[in-house]
Amino acid sequence: MKELAKKTKEAAIALGATSIEERNHALLCVAEALEKNKAAIFAANRVDLESAESLSAPLKKRLCFDEDKLTDIIKGLHALAKLPDPIGKIDLATELAEGLELYRVSCPIGLIGVIFESRPDAMVQISSLCLKSGNAVLLKGGSEALNTNRSLFVTMQNGLREAGIRPEVMGLLETREDVAQMLKMDEYIDLIIPRGSNEFVRYIMEHSHIPVLGHADGLCHVYVDAAADLSMAVRICVDSKAQNVAVCNAAETVLVHEKIAPAFLPELKAAMDLKGVELVGCPRTREIIACGKAADTDWETEYLDYKLSIRVADGLEDAIVHINSFGSGHTDSIVTADMDTARRFMTLVDSAGVYHNCSTRFADGFRYGFGAEVGVATGKLHARGPMGLEGLCTYKYKLFGSGQTVQDTVDGFVKYTHKPL
Amino acid sequence: MKELAKKTKEAAIALGATSIEERNHALLCVAEALEKNKAAIFAANRVDLESAESLSAPLKKRLCFDEDKLTDIIKGLHALAKLPDPIGKIDLATELAEGLELYRVSCPIGLIGVIFESRPDAMVQISSLCLKSGNAVLLKGGSEALNTNRSLFVTMQNGLREAGIRPEVMGLLETREDVAQMLKMDEYIDLIIPRGSNEFVRYIMEHSHIPVLGHADGLCHVYVDAAADLSMAVRICVDSKAQNVAVCNAAETVLVHEKIAPAFLPELKAAMDLKGVELVGCPRTREIIACGKAADTDWETEYLDYKLSIRVADGLEDAIVHINSFGSGHTDSIVTADMDTARRFMTLVDSAGVYHNCSTRFADGFRYGFGAEVGVATGKLHARGPMGLEGLCTYKYKLFGSGQTVQDTVDGFVKYTHKPL
Repeated sequence: MKELAKKTKEAAIALGATSIEERNHALLCVAEALEKNKAAIFAANRVDLESAESLSAPLKKRLCFDEDKLTDIIKGLHALAKLPDPIGKIDLATELAEGLELYRVSCPIGLIGVIFESRPDAMVQISSLCLKSGNAVLLKGGSEALNTNRSLFVTMQNGLREAGIRPEVMGLLETREDVAQMLKMDEYIDLIIPRGSNEFVRYIMEHSHIPVLGHADGLCHVYVDAAADLSMAVRICVDSKAQNVAVCNAAETVLVHEKIAPAFLPELKAAMDLKGVELVGCPRTREIIACGKAADTDWETEYLDYKLSIRVADGLEDAIVHINSFGSGHTDSIVTADMDTARRFMTLVDSAGVYHNCSTRFADGFRYGFGAEVGVATGKLHARGPMGLEGLCTYKYKLFGSGQTVQDTVDGFVKYTHKPL
Repeated sequence: MKELAKKTKEAAIALGATSIEERNHALLCVAEALEKNKAAIFAANRVDLESAESLSAPLKKRLCFDEDKLTDIIKGLHALAKLPDPIGKIDLATELAEGLELYRVSCPIGLIGVIFESRPDAMVQISSLCLKSGNAVLLKGGSEALNTNRSLFVTMQNGLREAGIRPEVMGLLETREDVAQMLKMDEYIDLIIPRGSNEFVRYIMEHSHIPVLGHADGLCHVYVDAAADLSMAVRICVDSKAQNVAVCNAAETVLVHEKIAPAFLPELKAAMDLKGVELVGCPRTREIIACGKAADTDWETEYLDYKLSIRVADGLEDAIVHINSFGSGHTDSIVTADMDTARRFMTLVDSAGVYHNCSTRFADGFRYGFGAEVGVATGKLHARGPMGLEGLCTYKYKLFGSGQTVQDTVDGFVKYTHKPL
């Protein structure tokens, strides 16, 4: 395992020096290799599916890798090859002194460890994003998909070889023991991205000193202000909760200003009933509509299901305190016609996404126009919110001189100019 | 302690909503308060100095807080008030669909824990950077400076009160027990910045799940290429090593291309002898010049002293592998007249600063033109290298809509445009 991490890290350095043409060509070669080897991949997937008899239907659907998924993946690789190079972007250029020029230039992070669940297509998606951004990657997929993952992995490595890229830029882990070891390898691994259940992500965060980007909870709120358009508020609440309940950007709690609650809550209940959403509410909510009683734990529960908690708030400040106390810093939306109220909400709510008059479900890399997504980060450092290729890059300072020393500046031979270039 | 962290975090949210005029005014009020209360501060400092009889002269000098230091600090506060607002900068603006606009806007990180050493002026410097960037701060200074720190802290809080800013945006910790507790408060504290010895910083990094920005080691290199101008190379090596040996951006190892070593090393030795720098070298170095024998541990030792290790390298790739293996990712410089070689070095060396033909000592926030510095980060996430006000900011995504739902996009009523604004 240590040997694998070391080799992959060495390959990472070399990959960081490749041109965008080489990396894009490699993406297309990977696409071609997948197409060519599809019979073997589908066969491997059938073995996995056969051993997965006991799994639920949705899980089996996630595990399945067929012609349709392959077509999507190949389309994705072609689209990715067309995106601009995230590496080598200059975002700061300063002349420090005559002939002494400072540039801040984006570059790959290095070696990234990714742990993901049963979907085998995630392996191709994640490793191609890493390839595009010049990062090497260690991958650990779900054990149910072991055969499919192996087949995809070998095929992708063949595509890289074809393109003249060292196949060691990808490494495959297969056991939990491997993962436990990976979490300790801060010498080689620069970043870990876990994708999976809350408990799983929290476990990773607590057991590694390597930086982790991602999210455990996605506890999103919609706050319906006194100045909200009622029908807009209902539509936004319904979409935020019920458009897809199983995702991190779905809302779990609706907060409603006390002034508008008597008019709004019956309408909300009617709409949620139609979608089959179970409601639990605070005492003031239950004075207005019939619904279950919300326990204290409801405010901190990510249902990921057809269930919604509702609380009547005294006003904006109360709603903000609630969100900052119980939210997960993912995405929170306000519905109001009052722009000042909206701005105050968006400044004071301490989340990666703060929305005005739209659904929390927009928090997504594709919808943000990033082309692709490696995950959504709810921490505050480095990347925040949906992470595209940019989230896989860092920067370095390049300083070009002509013999300058700091003593020269002390002696006055070199004078700081600090001019933007 | 938990109560203090909670109160400070609440104050942080409010501080994040203040205008730049309010924050700049507060900086000037703090400057005025310090000037007015200087007699009491100097008296407190005399108490600390009297109990510090046993300390070495340089440490006592760091501990001393006198008229000169106060003048510097007040000048610094006025300069800081003139810098542009780091908050509210928009670095991405996209129309996602008609009437649905996404902005990525810089904002404060929140509550920052800073642990620093004996210099009491560091307290004013750090907390004023936090104030300017809208962050609340918990401060723990060296115990030798306890009385001075208390006096400065109370004075600064008075300045804040004068300016109408809640004084709770600053909190003071006084015991090691407080620090141990702080490291566990990931619920409230967003970031820890430790400034101190390698062992101390490493301890912090290993004992907290809160993100830590800073550096333990500063193990910088100068690589003298075959195509180097000899006298330039000597000057850069001398400055990098000896201009100030006690700092993180001083060089600890010089690598020299085997072709130029016979001509270069005698000149380097002559210059280093003049500065009183002790040399230790690899076997090939010792065939050319008389010097001590470098042990394996020398390549990973940050001397912070008049001592330098020297190794003859087979060439560029060998030098890069050495730096990436033994360096600390801080700052490394190449001396060469060959621009292709320089570019390759700067791409492949995996450090926050990669320099061409200049001294490693330029790695510093003031020299980079950032106006001020909170520290130098050698990690790769969030801030890298010298951190100015920008390093104390994160961003949030603000999405302004007019009732859009994701279901609308599925149904085709809302179409993605993804146009830059």
